[in-house]
Amino acid sequence: MTTEKTTPRGLTYHDAGVASGEDACIGALLGHIRRTLSFRRGPGEPVLPLGYYANVLRVGELGIAIGTDGVGTKVLVAQQLEKYDTIGIDCVAMNANDILCAGAEPVAMVDYLAVPALEPVLLEQLAIGLARGAELAGISLPGGEIAQLGPIIQGVHPERAFDLAGTCVGLVPVDQVLVGQDIQPGEAVIGLASSGIHSNGLALARHVFFGAAGWTADRPVPELGRSIGEELLEPTRIYVREVMALLRAGLDIKALFHITGEGFFNLTRTQRPVGFHLDSLPAPPPVFRLIQELGHVAPAEMYRVYNMGVGFCLALPEARVDRALAIAAAHNVPAQRIGTVTDDPDRTITLAQPGLVGRAGVFRPA
Amino acid sequence: MTTEKTTPRGLTYHDAGVASGEDACIGALLGHIRRTLSFRRGPGEPVLPLGYYANVLRVGELGIAIGTDGVGTKVLVAQQLEKYDTIGIDCVAMNANDILCAGAEPVAMVDYLAVPALEPVLLEQLAIGLARGAELAGISLPGGEIAQLGPIIQGVHPERAFDLAGTCVGLVPVDQVLVGQDIQPGEAVIGLASSGIHSNGLALARHVFFGAAGWTADRPVPELGRSIGEELLEPTRIYVREVMALLRAGLDIKALFHITGEGFFNLTRTQRPVGFHLDSLPAPPPVFRLIQELGHVAPAEMYRVYNMGVGFCLALPEARVDRALAIAAAHNVPAQRIGTVTDDPDRTITLAQPGLVGRAGVFRPA
Repeated sequence: MTTEKTTPRGLTYHDAGVASGEDACIGALLGHIRRTLSFRRGPGEPVLPLGYYANVLRVGELGIAIGTDGVGTKVLVAQQLEKYDTIGIDCVAMNANDILCAGAEPVAMVDYLAVPALEPVLLEQLAIGLARGAELAGISLPGGEIAQLGPIIQGVHPERAFDLAGTCVGLVPVDQVLVGQDIQPGEAVIGLASSGIHSNGLALARHVFFGAAGWTADRPVPELGRSIGEELLEPTRIYVREVMALLRAGLDIKALFHITGEGFFNLTRTQRPVGFHLDSLPAPPPVFRLIQELGHVAPAEMYRVYNMGVGFCLALPEARVDRALAIAAAHNVPAQRIGTVTDDPDRTITLAQPGLVGRAGVFRPA
Repeated sequence: MTTEKTTPRGLTYHDAGVASGEDACIGALLGHIRRTLSFRRGPGEPVLPLGYYANVLRVGELGIAIGTDGVGTKVLVAQQLEKYDTIGIDCVAMNANDILCAGAEPVAMVDYLAVPALEPVLLEQLAIGLARGAELAGISLPGGEIAQLGPIIQGVHPERAFDLAGTCVGLVPVDQVLVGQDIQPGEAVIGLASSGIHSNGLALARHVFFGAAGWTADRPVPELGRSIGEELLEPTRIYVREVMALLRAGLDIKALFHITGEGFFNLTRTQRPVGFHLDSLPAPPPVFRLIQELGHVAPAEMYRVYNMGVGFCLALPEARVDRALAIAAAHNVPAQRIGTVTDDPDRTITLAQPGLVGRAGVFRPA
């Protein structure tokens, strides 16, 4: 069973070592890209290695966070439903949430839209979503690119095919850049609820529902209270307001994690090598149970690919948990303490509830 | 005959008015995107409207220039030749040259690479070009995204299909942002030589050579001294070093123009509405003559789509021309005075040598 990945460079090139075949595939690429980190010295030089959610460019005491991401094959679900006015929210979400993880406040995103031909209705609908996402994230869309690439871009609805990606920049004082450099064993991990599948693992989900199970996108699913297509197209939650409130509250937050294409292995993206023991994960929302059951997908795979109901995590001292949860509640985002940072240079992730232990990108039954 | 375009938002939404059908196609989109310019106030707010080569985000006195662009269907030529180690240079060039046009110094680029599947040899070759481009531009590549989009990305070499885009950021004091706000009739226009077709108009060129004429990419062309594929794949020139030297030389430069998908209509991208009389354009390099002759393409179309040998222009006072040309020569980039800024609120572009007059995106015989 294939799974889609949108692989940030160097994602698993941690101290924990190289895991999957994908990492081997991009190893040579990374070598060349890594060399360029020294090509710019002085104002604008990058302060982080590859592999975090965003890099940060230093200009005096100012840090300019920058990261890029796309919405992946979620565009195909939009085409199946012929509904294009929310996928732009996903594009903003995937990018702005990554910028937050550096401790930065997103300020602007440029988008890259590739289409076979200019189709005014499609373009306007996509722009509606992008603008709504920008509003939710409190950022501008100061520019963008529409590339007409007839021989390159295809989709399930040929006249409405597209690819959509973005690059977000944010601001953070350089001395406040967060990459888990001070994360401590014993600290707490808080999980903020996802709005659903977000923008990762859509290839597997589409394979399960529309391939293996033979469903159509408009099939109503009682457990979901809507069609499977509508569920899969639910926009990725934008965490900017709540996370900025948390960052500004002086909670001594140590690390921030957008739970994307590597599922809970995103927690290994800390400068300081630590492990995580998650003993209070929420019950997975119905869409994930459906994927797992219909597709006979192993829990180890589910927790490697999906957010399983937790779209964003933060690590902070135990004593700050209550206040953090109160701030999340004030922003109407369901949140709970989901576990604890552990002392583990091998970066083991233990999930008590499904009973999984993972290292180097692979979960196994505990 | 179709032409590829990579249309920067609002390109022809100047005072001169709306021109082509493409602009009508993106009009509704632009309305939604334009609204977002006010969504961010304070640090990081954009200082320019849509439609310039790059926008600039203000953080105190610092301006962060940001722009995004892709290499378009030039990727298909790379696939025809099975040569992938230079297209990354084009990606850096298209982006870094745009940032220069705001008067900013490019400092970093993130790239977005979409592929059907991870193919290590392709990825490494692409990275070699990206790194070489970064070196030439003096920028870092602090991050990037590799999206695996099997159902979306296709090409002429199915296993080596890809799409490649980037987002570049640069730095410029806000009070030195250049958008042609002070450009004056009577000032001179200098043109810097292109290295060839660059990364625009490849769809038309491919149609002419590989469609209409039935050539193969490896066909040797005596006039070019190499195969047609090699000629079309020649990397886009990166103008960073020479243009930064020009900007730093105190030449009172008024406007900078990257000659991209709108050919010489790029000259209309000035805040102050002026016209241009170009009476000393260099003879078009052979590749353009070949496209024109083999494809029976009208000169009006050639000068609308292609750089015709002039990849970058700058406007500056007549008295500074000699010094500017000396600086270009010191950087080994062929340059010449190609014409004059005229007093024309309708933004007419006159090309004396081919005998064309253009307004609102359309050239006609003079």
